[in-house]
Amino acid sequence: MSRSHVEVQTGLLARRAAQLATRAALVLTDENVAALLPAALAERPRHVLVPGEASKSWDELGRLLRALDAGGVDRDGHLVAVGGGVVTDLGGLAASLHRRGISWSAVPTSLVGQVDAALGGKTAVNLGGGKNTVGSFHPPADVVIDPGVLATLPRRHLCAGMAEVLKTALISGPEALDAAAALEPDDFAAATPAAVAVIEACVATKSALVEQDLHDRGPRRALNLGHTFGHAFEALALAGDPADSLLHGEAVALGLLCAARLAAGLPDADRELPARLTGTLRRWGLPTSSPLTAEPLLAEMGRDKKRAGGALRLVLAPRPGRVEIEDAVPADRIRAGLEAVRKSASTS
Amino acid sequence: MSRSHVEVQTGLLARRAAQLATRAALVLTDENVAALLPAALAERPRHVLVPGEASKSWDELGRLLRALDAGGVDRDGHLVAVGGGVVTDLGGLAASLHRRGISWSAVPTSLVGQVDAALGGKTAVNLGGGKNTVGSFHPPADVVIDPGVLATLPRRHLCAGMAEVLKTALISGPEALDAAAALEPDDFAAATPAAVAVIEACVATKSALVEQDLHDRGPRRALNLGHTFGHAFEALALAGDPADSLLHGEAVALGLLCAARLAAGLPDADRELPARLTGTLRRWGLPTSSPLTAEPLLAEMGRDKKRAGGALRLVLAPRPGRVEIEDAVPADRIRAGLEAVRKSASTS
Repeated sequence: MSRSHVEVQTGLLARRAAQLATRAALVLTDENVAALLPAALAERPRHVLVPGEASKSWDELGRLLRALDAGGVDRDGHLVAVGGGVVTDLGGLAASLHRRGISWSAVPTSLVGQVDAALGGKTAVNLGGGKNTVGSFHPPADVVIDPGVLATLPRRHLCAGMAEVLKTALISGPEALDAAAALEPDDFAAATPAAVAVIEACVATKSALVEQDLHDRGPRRALNLGHTFGHAFEALALAGDPADSLLHGEAVALGLLCAARLAAGLPDADRELPARLTGTLRRWGLPTSSPLTAEPLLAEMGRDKKRAGGALRLVLAPRPGRVEIEDAVPADRIRAGLEAVRKSASTS
Repeated sequence: MSRSHVEVQTGLLARRAAQLATRAALVLTDENVAALLPAALAERPRHVLVPGEASKSWDELGRLLRALDAGGVDRDGHLVAVGGGVVTDLGGLAASLHRRGISWSAVPTSLVGQVDAALGGKTAVNLGGGKNTVGSFHPPADVVIDPGVLATLPRRHLCAGMAEVLKTALISGPEALDAAAALEPDDFAAATPAAVAVIEACVATKSALVEQDLHDRGPRRALNLGHTFGHAFEALALAGDPADSLLHGEAVALGLLCAARLAAGLPDADRELPARLTGTLRRWGLPTSSPLTAEPLLAEMGRDKKRAGGALRLVLAPRPGRVEIEDAVPADRIRAGLEAVRKSASTS
């Protein structure tokens, strides 16, 4: 199946819990979210992850697949993944592999998950130090989005989700960007109508691109805006000092700024965009600078998407609603993009 | 992609070697086949497996994915898998997962591979004691079938392939079964025109079913004939005394006999079929009896395809060319099928 049934509604998780529980051969979640599961889902067999990116691993995938096998889940079985991007990325990958593919439902409980990670069927784990090196395209049958659950999200995680909101709004156009930039973290925590409308708009933008291009060879690539840079920040931070750790959304925030700096050099670019983006990210407590230096980031980016002579494919948005994909951006221009977030420059 | 370009021709591997080498970011093979690789392929980066079913494992899959990552193979990379079913099952699965899917070519060097395993895009490894518990549907771009390489195959492995030949011929019809049953092992080893024609017929039968039903929810299930029984023999043999080990094809031979015994009870069945099948299998040195007892086999089959009340879905061929899928065969009838190969009965 390549299309998911997506619903966005405050209170939806409680309303759908019994139905999801009936289908679930196994519920995948993490220790934080497990405490918040509706009773019907909490009673089903479950596999509980340690929260955090470290669970998005090859070894954890093996444990989950063994649990599906030991639980006697057959080809008609169904997995319900309730949690953030780590839970839905891992759960979707296990669902695509167990008995060569079972159906699954995604119940994203983070803002990143609701506007991005749980949509579109990209699944993955990290292997060999890279981000999402191993994965599949396996769209969930259902995506159950309940903005009401965002109230329970730690503030840092909520704010990280704003980076994906801004990315999607930038792709969509000026109105979407205005609506997103007008929100405060409390709007999401309270699931105000304005916040729910922004989530719905992100779902619509992403779903339209995925429907055209599930396998990410054409228009869907727009959604990689900020991510080639972002994955490099994320991978190096994951390998480095835990005090400098970055959530996925935080890495994407840095990536968006790098891409914006690069795009500002394109003809017809909105020259105010980098400053406007920086302002919004700061207001949300998102990083706008990094201690990481250019060379290791460049090497990591090359590993993500290798191209002849060190040139890389990058997605650039010179103005809201206009996305350009450059197939061979030379290393020098990429270095210039990385300058946008160099700690010494940005914090001075 | 869901269709593969399949070619069958003696001498094809040597003729296609340079072209395959140009595309191959990595060549996957095993220690036996590595020695026989054409020079052009032998010069490419390669990952060499220990021959045998034990390499079709989760851990080996992880090592192969790490090798693809370490080799900088990107989304446009291509894997060439040269070997038997273990090599193509594992290689296809790695290709489906690396960077969420790269293209691959299958070069089956075993008879099982040429008539069955390398066709149709079913990939898998074994996990948690079961057969093919983890896998995907990821058809190779090309399947390069060179019957000339069968000359190098150990006789036991060559003969094991006959079980899949007979399975496919049984599904196809009386003429196909007659043509297959008329062959001797030396026909395959010498790639006689009759043997090549049987390989081509198997490719045509399987390709037609796969084209109708890649995901094995409908007509393709006919190809599971003998395999629900067979996987149970194979899994228990794998876990047991190495002296009693079974190749995949040998386990399928036992499975075909069990299924034939069950099918002989259907109205309109060809009552001579079980005896005829037994005769052909014996002539090929394939097992027609097993020391394994019914209860552990039943338990293993239940794990393979669990159904309400211990009943199982089975594929039965009451006569050549007629395949019936029974959705809930009760345990008692399955036990009766297993009687067909009980050592004490068959060897008396």
